[in-house]
Amino acid sequence: MLFSKGNATGNDFVIVDDHHGAMDLPAQQVARVCDRHFGIGGDGLLRVVRAGRVPGYNYDPNLWFMDYRNADGSIAEMCGNGLRLFARHLLEQSLVGTAEFEVATRVGLKRVREQQDGKIAADLGEVRLGAELVTIEAAGRTFQAHPADVGNPHAVCFVDDIEALDLGPAPAWSPVEAFPNGVNVEFVQVMEAGVLRMRVHERGVGETLSCGTGVVAAAAVYRAISGHDGPVQVMVRGGELTATFEDGHVWLTGPAVVVAEGEFRA
Amino acid sequence: MLFSKGNATGNDFVIVDDHHGAMDLPAQQVARVCDRHFGIGGDGLLRVVRAGRVPGYNYDPNLWFMDYRNADGSIAEMCGNGLRLFARHLLEQSLVGTAEFEVATRVGLKRVREQQDGKIAADLGEVRLGAELVTIEAAGRTFQAHPADVGNPHAVCFVDDIEALDLGPAPAWSPVEAFPNGVNVEFVQVMEAGVLRMRVHERGVGETLSCGTGVVAAAAVYRAISGHDGPVQVMVRGGELTATFEDGHVWLTGPAVVVAEGEFRA
Repeated sequence: MLFSKGNATGNDFVIVDDHHGAMDLPAQQVARVCDRHFGIGGDGLLRVVRAGRVPGYNYDPNLWFMDYRNADGSIAEMCGNGLRLFARHLLEQSLVGTAEFEVATRVGLKRVREQQDGKIAADLGEVRLGAELVTIEAAGRTFQAHPADVGNPHAVCFVDDIEALDLGPAPAWSPVEAFPNGVNVEFVQVMEAGVLRMRVHERGVGETLSCGTGVVAAAAVYRAISGHDGPVQVMVRGGELTATFEDGHVWLTGPAVVVAEGEFRA
Repeated sequence: MLFSKGNATGNDFVIVDDHHGAMDLPAQQVARVCDRHFGIGGDGLLRVVRAGRVPGYNYDPNLWFMDYRNADGSIAEMCGNGLRLFARHLLEQSLVGTAEFEVATRVGLKRVREQQDGKIAADLGEVRLGAELVTIEAAGRTFQAHPADVGNPHAVCFVDDIEALDLGPAPAWSPVEAFPNGVNVEFVQVMEAGVLRMRVHERGVGETLSCGTGVVAAAAVYRAISGHDGPVQVMVRGGELTATFEDGHVWLTGPAVVVAEGEFRA
């Protein structure tokens, strides 16, 4: 199995080109490839396949479909940083002819573009902010968190000193009905106007280096409560991202880089 | 930079062929390659270089020298599982002409061989057992541990139910002078005569999937206190190893497999 490996602010992925949809890629094999000790290692796998070769969707068959899998092999809907790395790979391999294009995903068409500075921007759609605060218990403290939905659920907590937080076990929340499918919890410190520092606890995973939808959720909540208008720069453990708001949609912009190519002895 | 990646019972390494010793491989670059999110990922890096190209040693210049680096780029003396994977790579690439051969390392010549069943055995030399028990505080309990030296320091603790252990923070020991440079702590459950189950806390790292010298230390202590004569099979989290005792030396035997080859954009 030929592969590439890369990352977007530290979220790393194994990329597999399967343009004609010829590969059988069972969960067990994805898990083996993504295993950090016994395989290549990655937060997930991105299969590159023509949309016309993916049953069950009615996209333009010439578009590229992002078949995203979690590291355990399960199917996942979307991943903001994964989408940006996917776009980088399409650009590098000359699989697209323009700097801005659409990618087919399980949750619809997603617009992406390479900026002149080389960064990759992806339209992550709309953020829906929750009306009521939710109580989050995390790091031995209690937060009044702002719920936000970016296709997946988030709870944004503001803190004074983010590095001092000892993020241990998974956060708990009340009311429990607020997040029936679990929640990603963002801890955000406002550094200056429009500049945030963020750490994130991803549901089922723990603290991670970055989370694209989490950055977007944090930026949207910050704008809503501060009145800040304009882009929001968010520093995560794995690098720096910017959330830009256009016509009700949020674009996530930052680095995405392929670091290796190779062959896995599948 | 061309690389291979493989593992030996879950200890994984990036292998770099530099036969003529032409590469400059600063610690920073090793750390980048071994970074699991931003690079390829590995517990360490094995540089393959002719012994004659390594300054400071007087080995037969045609031998292969294992230049082992820790994941942070620092230089390390030895690694039992790394040595076994190194041998696998030499065999696969036809860099040696016999199934049994010597590898030059920073701590002397090490004999290795491929068995008929495909497993790789490595002579890890002598184990020196400590005369006095040391008190280890770990997993919320107190153990009377057996010290053992395999070139690096170990303390072997016997337990009744190894899976029930909640290995949290690094172990502490007394007297503190027992291990001035830290210690690797092995937790061992005797399953039946000659069969152990083991977990290991490696100094500076935490719990790992396997530790070659730890397996050898555990087997040697077990033989000394049980009177068992013959090979000792040790099941670790990352697989199964066997320690065999010949003429005062211990051979470590188990699987070692290269899983991928590729090119890293250094």
